[in-house]
Amino acid sequence: MKLNDDERIDQLVSAGLAIIQSPTAFCYSLDALLLAHFANVSRRDDKVIVDFCAGNGAVTMLLARQTASPVIGVEIQPRLVDMARRSVQLNHMQDRVRFIEADITQLSQEIPYDSVDYLTCNPPYFLGDATGKVNDNEYLAIARHEIHLPLTHLVQQASRFLKMKGKFYLVHRPDRLLEIIDELRRYHLVPKRVQFVHPKMNKPANVVLIEAIKNGSEIGLKWLPPLFVYDDEGNYLPDVKAIVHGKRK
Amino acid sequence: MKLNDDERIDQLVSAGLAIIQSPTAFCYSLDALLLAHFANVSRRDDKVIVDFCAGNGAVTMLLARQTASPVIGVEIQPRLVDMARRSVQLNHMQDRVRFIEADITQLSQEIPYDSVDYLTCNPPYFLGDATGKVNDNEYLAIARHEIHLPLTHLVQQASRFLKMKGKFYLVHRPDRLLEIIDELRRYHLVPKRVQFVHPKMNKPANVVLIEAIKNGSEIGLKWLPPLFVYDDEGNYLPDVKAIVHGKRK
Repeated sequence: MKLNDDERIDQLVSAGLAIIQSPTAFCYSLDALLLAHFANVSRRDDKVIVDFCAGNGAVTMLLARQTASPVIGVEIQPRLVDMARRSVQLNHMQDRVRFIEADITQLSQEIPYDSVDYLTCNPPYFLGDATGKVNDNEYLAIARHEIHLPLTHLVQQASRFLKMKGKFYLVHRPDRLLEIIDELRRYHLVPKRVQFVHPKMNKPANVVLIEAIKNGSEIGLKWLPPLFVYDDEGNYLPDVKAIVHGKRK
Repeated sequence: MKLNDDERIDQLVSAGLAIIQSPTAFCYSLDALLLAHFANVSRRDDKVIVDFCAGNGAVTMLLARQTASPVIGVEIQPRLVDMARRSVQLNHMQDRVRFIEADITQLSQEIPYDSVDYLTCNPPYFLGDATGKVNDNEYLAIARHEIHLPLTHLVQQASRFLKMKGKFYLVHRPDRLLEIIDELRRYHLVPKRVQFVHPKMNKPANVVLIEAIKNGSEIGLKWLPPLFVYDDEGNYLPDVKAIVHGKRK
């Protein structure tokens, strides 16, 4: 496999995946692994499963390990799509996983509206506006800041592509949760399960995982037991260790 | 101290309080202790501190242990106000704690609008409507179901009585959290801290504690580390044990 520039291959042992990473273009984070683990996709082979903001494809390929259905990743940045496609070859998953290079707001040619059973997204978390803190590296800036994809457009598109009762899985920052819930409800996506992730037992949450159902009933939102990432020595606690290093559900 | 009917005196050792309880009229629950612990009231003597839905006065008296300011409890049920007033005598707190027997929607004679610094409430959690599950015992029914106090009226009154930047502390059920947040924002109470309480480490939350600030900024909601109540043997875990049995903050 040809590697470009500063690319390297990381092993995701838990899922038996090799994934091309680049510190200057994109590396998947723990959040990606948590999202893929949180997503309850069907094992059947007849579902439509899509991963928005696929980056270098870690979530997309992790989903493919959990289902017999094909999985489609959508990513706006050509360089990341190229990395993701080479990782698919590396893992011999060409018949299971494909990537579309597209802006998800310009996608209706490729995937019909009201067709998706399961949709995941690890989107840019940070506002793209005048905070002055946007990364100088354009690849990382696009992946982390809402430059091409404000939250409201993401949620609107998620709702359009999902079929009735289709499930949307989102990972994001807890300080934006109220805004996220507002947007979800605005586009008829009803929050059903929320799980907070705390860096340590005694720290406020810094990541939140959300499951929403299109046209679901407003009743029955579950606030799941949280995940704690590190112990006081900075080692992964058992639940997270299992997600990262093995014993996947 | 004269005890009526099935009344008994429970000791809240953590706070050095004796509290009159009645299984057929009202007993404070763990939620009351959690609420009083969660509330960050000033230690100063010049604050206005009010406890809505005071029941038999456990939260009201616990707040008085945390501040030099007087504390007012408001309770609609005469029998519970009578129990609470006798408990105040029992604890020699007559100069610090008083109770108003009133419907909080009919309270403006007693406490001025825009005057309260800290307001706590452990309200009826359950809908009062046609679920058919309302308790036959009228005392317990009023304490547990929204018969006299729908959530929206509670939040509206909380907002009216609080002064600008005053703090509202509410304990409730997580399955109503989205509705609660809607109501808070509707009445200009901005959620600032949320803490979930899980009965066990691996169970969804069954209680939620919320701090909101009147006319606060929308930025900076913290999702605190959760509390877990029981271990697998049904014993209190250390953090909750400290709240119930001692070592209060």
